[in-house]
Amino acid sequence: MTDTQARVDAVLRGEVRAASRLMRDLDDGRPEGDAALALLYPHTGRAHIVGITGNPGAGKSTLTDRLVTEWRRQGHNVGVVAIDPSSPFTGGAILGDRVRMQGHSGDSGVFIRSLATRGVMGGLSRSTRDVVNVLDAMGYARILIETVGVGQDEVDIANTAHTSVVVMVPGLGDSVQALKAGLLEIADIFVVNKADRPEAARMVRELEMLLDLEGGTRDGRAVPIIQTVATEGRGADALAAAIDAHRAALQAGDGWRLRLQRRRRGELVDRIDQGIRAAVQARLQAHGGLESVITSLTDGTLDPVRAARAILGEPPQP
Amino acid sequence: MTDTQARVDAVLRGEVRAASRLMRDLDDGRPEGDAALALLYPHTGRAHIVGITGNPGAGKSTLTDRLVTEWRRQGHNVGVVAIDPSSPFTGGAILGDRVRMQGHSGDSGVFIRSLATRGVMGGLSRSTRDVVNVLDAMGYARILIETVGVGQDEVDIANTAHTSVVVMVPGLGDSVQALKAGLLEIADIFVVNKADRPEAARMVRELEMLLDLEGGTRDGRAVPIIQTVATEGRGADALAAAIDAHRAALQAGDGWRLRLQRRRRGELVDRIDQGIRAAVQARLQAHGGLESVITSLTDGTLDPVRAARAILGEPPQP
Repeated sequence: MTDTQARVDAVLRGEVRAASRLMRDLDDGRPEGDAALALLYPHTGRAHIVGITGNPGAGKSTLTDRLVTEWRRQGHNVGVVAIDPSSPFTGGAILGDRVRMQGHSGDSGVFIRSLATRGVMGGLSRSTRDVVNVLDAMGYARILIETVGVGQDEVDIANTAHTSVVVMVPGLGDSVQALKAGLLEIADIFVVNKADRPEAARMVRELEMLLDLEGGTRDGRAVPIIQTVATEGRGADALAAAIDAHRAALQAGDGWRLRLQRRRRGELVDRIDQGIRAAVQARLQAHGGLESVITSLTDGTLDPVRAARAILGEPPQP
Repeated sequence: MTDTQARVDAVLRGEVRAASRLMRDLDDGRPEGDAALALLYPHTGRAHIVGITGNPGAGKSTLTDRLVTEWRRQGHNVGVVAIDPSSPFTGGAILGDRVRMQGHSGDSGVFIRSLATRGVMGGLSRSTRDVVNVLDAMGYARILIETVGVGQDEVDIANTAHTSVVVMVPGLGDSVQALKAGLLEIADIFVVNKADRPEAARMVRELEMLLDLEGGTRDGRAVPIIQTVATEGRGADALAAAIDAHRAALQAGDGWRLRLQRRRRGELVDRIDQGIRAAVQARLQAHGGLESVITSLTDGTLDPVRAARAILGEPPQP
């Protein structure tokens, strides 16, 4: 048995240390990580992947925590991928909100992985998708991805999760404005959190109106609006039920397979993209680096047509 | 003398038919176009490239027309690159506003090229940069790029032009909102067009205030705000003078060279990007096309790690 097969078997047995080490290797882009992941893929596809998105301050972390509690109560194993803003100083994850999750830290049925976003605009890194697949192969029945809530996040999560939960808060800016950003199209479930605020009823009405204007259905069903007070745990059971209902709807039709297909497409495109960047970077280095090439272009000793051909490894033109 | 050298010489002599044919070849991505462009590059770098951007309806086309008239009066040859929305039916340029420019159609000192944008979000296509370089090599002293005014346009134009002119109209939405979109950072010159409207004075004050908050200088000088009524030709002379003053400021310092450098960088990156896409597309075709690969990924008969390696042409892993 190869080393790779041994670590794959350890991950499939649910060994947390082996899984953590694999996630780190994947995050670092090490080839042995990829080799193991390739062997794990046949064991994926069973988990229900749920994305939690919404503006910073909407209470996503607290809601994630409550949902984990609810699912544990129901006997499900839960994986959590929390994507935190990169610190400009360390490049590492800022763990602020994660502390709250430590109520689950002694629970072997919960696996929490914090990932730093790559780059300022948020967005799901390739690592996120890889971590989800490792957790899926390990047999976690529910996998929660909690995003930063800025930039490309919302679209990326809709391409990764089976169920996208968009968390809104009454009084945090104009809901209509936020929805213009594309949240209306990607939400499978809306949560109005901090629903004990007086503006909550108005926000629910606004959302209902907007959903109605848009047709109001997703995968053949109305988009539910769940009211929660995450800090007190209120509404977490209703949210869990709505998520279950969404899975049932997906599995009753083509939805489940279509979402897997969309996810696999994203994984493939990400990997090709990354491979290409690495190849171009290597070629650029062989030509003295980007800055040196650009200096030659600016001086006129080289032109962009020839430079691009050389960097791409194409033969020179006549 | 090769065919390529012969057509390059014709373009350098200013022959319009040869230039148009070259622009078309470049637009179509034909290799003979690239070969000619490579030989033209040493003759570029003299033209003053001016971008005109702003919301649809701001009067960019009329202002472009007036600026051409002003420069012709001063004896300069002028090239115009007008980027029009693609028609979903023909893929070609919608020429509506261009009709107005036909006042210059009998004038051999004016070369007008309309380009369709590629894709819905606008953005400067590689063709735009190529056309600018051909016009530059032909000896046009001023080159105007008029954008569609949506999406990535404004940022792209700042990476291509020496001088970015942002056209605003009083009463067309909230100026502060528009500026949040990044126009404040890229404008070398603001134009408040339709300045005979009553709200014009307020808009000028708002812009002054915003520029003041931001520091208000670009390349070591204050950002001028020019008031125009393009339909009557009012203010076109002041705008031409402001553009000249900006060129003088750039040439007095590092600005001119830095903008060339930024432009060359953009041209290189565009070409590398395009070359890579073509290579990946060819590899995907060799594997039966993207959809076929994704079906295998969804069925589980292939995994994204192996698929990406195959498409990238990397050897399989152990």
